[in-house]
Amino acid sequence: MEAGPPGSARPAEPGPCLSGQRGADHTASASLQSVAGTEPGRHPQAVAAVLPAGGCGERMGVPTPKQFCPILERPLISYTLQALERVCWIKDIVVAVTGENMEVMKSIIQKYQHKRISLVEAGVTRHRSIFNGLKALAEDQINSKLSKPEVVIIHDAVRPFVEEGVLLKVVTAAKEHGAAGAIRPLVSTVVSPSADGCLDYSLERARHRASEMPQAFLFDVIYEAYQQCSDYDLEFGTECLQLALKYCCTKAKLVEGSPDLWKVTYKRDLYAAESIIKERISQEICVVMDTEEDNKHVGHLLEEVLKSELNVHFLDFKLVPPSQKMENLMQIREFAKEVKERNILLYGLLISYPQDDQKLQESLRQGAIIIASLIKERNSGLIGQLLIA
Amino acid sequence: MEAGPPGSARPAEPGPCLSGQRGADHTASASLQSVAGTEPGRHPQAVAAVLPAGGCGERMGVPTPKQFCPILERPLISYTLQALERVCWIKDIVVAVTGENMEVMKSIIQKYQHKRISLVEAGVTRHRSIFNGLKALAEDQINSKLSKPEVVIIHDAVRPFVEEGVLLKVVTAAKEHGAAGAIRPLVSTVVSPSADGCLDYSLERARHRASEMPQAFLFDVIYEAYQQCSDYDLEFGTECLQLALKYCCTKAKLVEGSPDLWKVTYKRDLYAAESIIKERISQEICVVMDTEEDNKHVGHLLEEVLKSELNVHFLDFKLVPPSQKMENLMQIREFAKEVKERNILLYGLLISYPQDDQKLQESLRQGAIIIASLIKERNSGLIGQLLIA
Repeated sequence: MEAGPPGSARPAEPGPCLSGQRGADHTASASLQSVAGTEPGRHPQAVAAVLPAGGCGERMGVPTPKQFCPILERPLISYTLQALERVCWIKDIVVAVTGENMEVMKSIIQKYQHKRISLVEAGVTRHRSIFNGLKALAEDQINSKLSKPEVVIIHDAVRPFVEEGVLLKVVTAAKEHGAAGAIRPLVSTVVSPSADGCLDYSLERARHRASEMPQAFLFDVIYEAYQQCSDYDLEFGTECLQLALKYCCTKAKLVEGSPDLWKVTYKRDLYAAESIIKERISQEICVVMDTEEDNKHVGHLLEEVLKSELNVHFLDFKLVPPSQKMENLMQIREFAKEVKERNILLYGLLISYPQDDQKLQESLRQGAIIIASLIKERNSGLIGQLLIA
Repeated sequence: MEAGPPGSARPAEPGPCLSGQRGADHTASASLQSVAGTEPGRHPQAVAAVLPAGGCGERMGVPTPKQFCPILERPLISYTLQALERVCWIKDIVVAVTGENMEVMKSIIQKYQHKRISLVEAGVTRHRSIFNGLKALAEDQINSKLSKPEVVIIHDAVRPFVEEGVLLKVVTAAKEHGAAGAIRPLVSTVVSPSADGCLDYSLERARHRASEMPQAFLFDVIYEAYQQCSDYDLEFGTECLQLALKYCCTKAKLVEGSPDLWKVTYKRDLYAAESIIKERISQEICVVMDTEEDNKHVGHLLEEVLKSELNVHFLDFKLVPPSQKMENLMQIREFAKEVKERNILLYGLLISYPQDDQKLQESLRQGAIIIASLIKERNSGLIGQLLIA
């Protein structure tokens, strides 16, 4: 059994993985023609993205900056890049990383075969990193391979679950309003402390929102805002929408985002992200069966039981001749080690086939539980084991 | 091998489980004498807690209200109750639940042997539920077995990781200031939309905080506030500190809380909570070994390797005679099913013992990886399997 069909849904490998709502993506792409501006005379590369990734993640409580923390052995930022790459109308993705992480970032791009990425040096604050990214996109930069986009998306490296739908919404709104950003309802009431650490006032929760990412801007608006921006704002500000308002009088359109846009900030957020990724991966599995010819229906029975365990979409279901390599336990383990290199987790499962129908059902149920839990947990410590149902 | 020593650290069973910082708790208890007010003439039952648990959890996207969602087969609220019960100076815990969940709540209390709990009917809003809890604690209630506390803690049923330290801090501050609440830095900038859905203004992040739980109040202050409270505030308000300010001119002390105080709101928060609980449980494990007399040192070697894998505290390490019951695979599985009832997850692990030292090291390393991953994942689908290292 392997988790994930060949060539897809493997998070630690190159290629598309978090497939999400493909159907929805399709519709979104079709309706983007007018947004991306491909009519003659307009700039063909209309939308770019800037990702500030220079943070040190001090709130995470781990030494690795959070954007480089591994989730199922793959760095968080790689999932975010993949989410942006899936959107074909984003022509360039500019990532701002610190000098000391430049090589790490380059190796991530190479290992996971990320495309359309340009790297710039991060600044000492988030705003300075974004400004560096925008400079790289501005036409006045000499030797730049990038060209100025009409609209620029600003996103966080630590929000890996961004979907094409919300990107399209903010880009469309930015074209109309000059600026746009995703928002979410507040989970907690917001209070303001007085100087003595006591409650000064609390805000009415219904009248406020959390400003999330992605945001999008007409390039000229946000670039102008950063060029006009005071040193104080570059050092202590955090909100791009506020810069567009303050320096360009552009009132951003606020767009309701999904819960999945949340920012990976604390260690618990890494746990949550890992579980979400595992859940998405376990939507698509491939079970390779080896049964005797006259027991074929056992396979179909297993499929039935598995579906009730896992809510799984069966992609592939075929009989293969028993491999000589699989003859004994040690060989399963060697084979499992081998395919682990390609991020395929292989486990052996022997399902007994008693004549008694009740016992058979029990066997199948047990097999289904084992398969389901292996897929859900993706426990790489148990590869090559022969489990018995 | 079993995860968790007998009689402790089993989340789905009664008794203490999330042990946390026991050392810290000890200090906290010692210094509470003056807070809980045990001197003669003062009310002996000085601190109570009210937990509104009437919410329907519409943000979770699941039909079960979030406080009743299972984490490792145990409802979330049970972890929260356990966290409060561990604190010996909280004399009464009043939980407000809706009529339709009253029986569920009673069965949870019975199953997990929660103590010092009283149930009241929840109101239609959070404030009305809290008010009902306070009424049950007020002395003017006829037939109440509860007595009026000096200080009342208000906490959320969906914040299971509250520690004694922060409870002590808010109670101490409430004694001095009349009211106190835990706060956290804002993760996102807070914005205010204008009527047309555009950005009106954004708040300076550094000057605002998220108001979290627990909060604590002098009972007379918060009870007075609720009695004076307008219907509008009872319907649409969310913030208890605000009521104390508005109706009793009591400026709450704001106390910095830990990240673990966060509120389980979305499905991803359940994932995060489960991972945190698994991580805490895996701090304490018990390995039961069965080795031949002359191979005893293999056990010690394994312990060494395991420690590097798991950062684990060894509680127990003993040799037991091989059980007749364990003679064959099916018997291990039957035994595993049996002890699963007591929430012990039992797996078999056969570690080969080659003469070649390098091979032995490899065997041990493999065994340690298997043990570590079984403990971390707590995969109940694989109980009774014989794994091979």
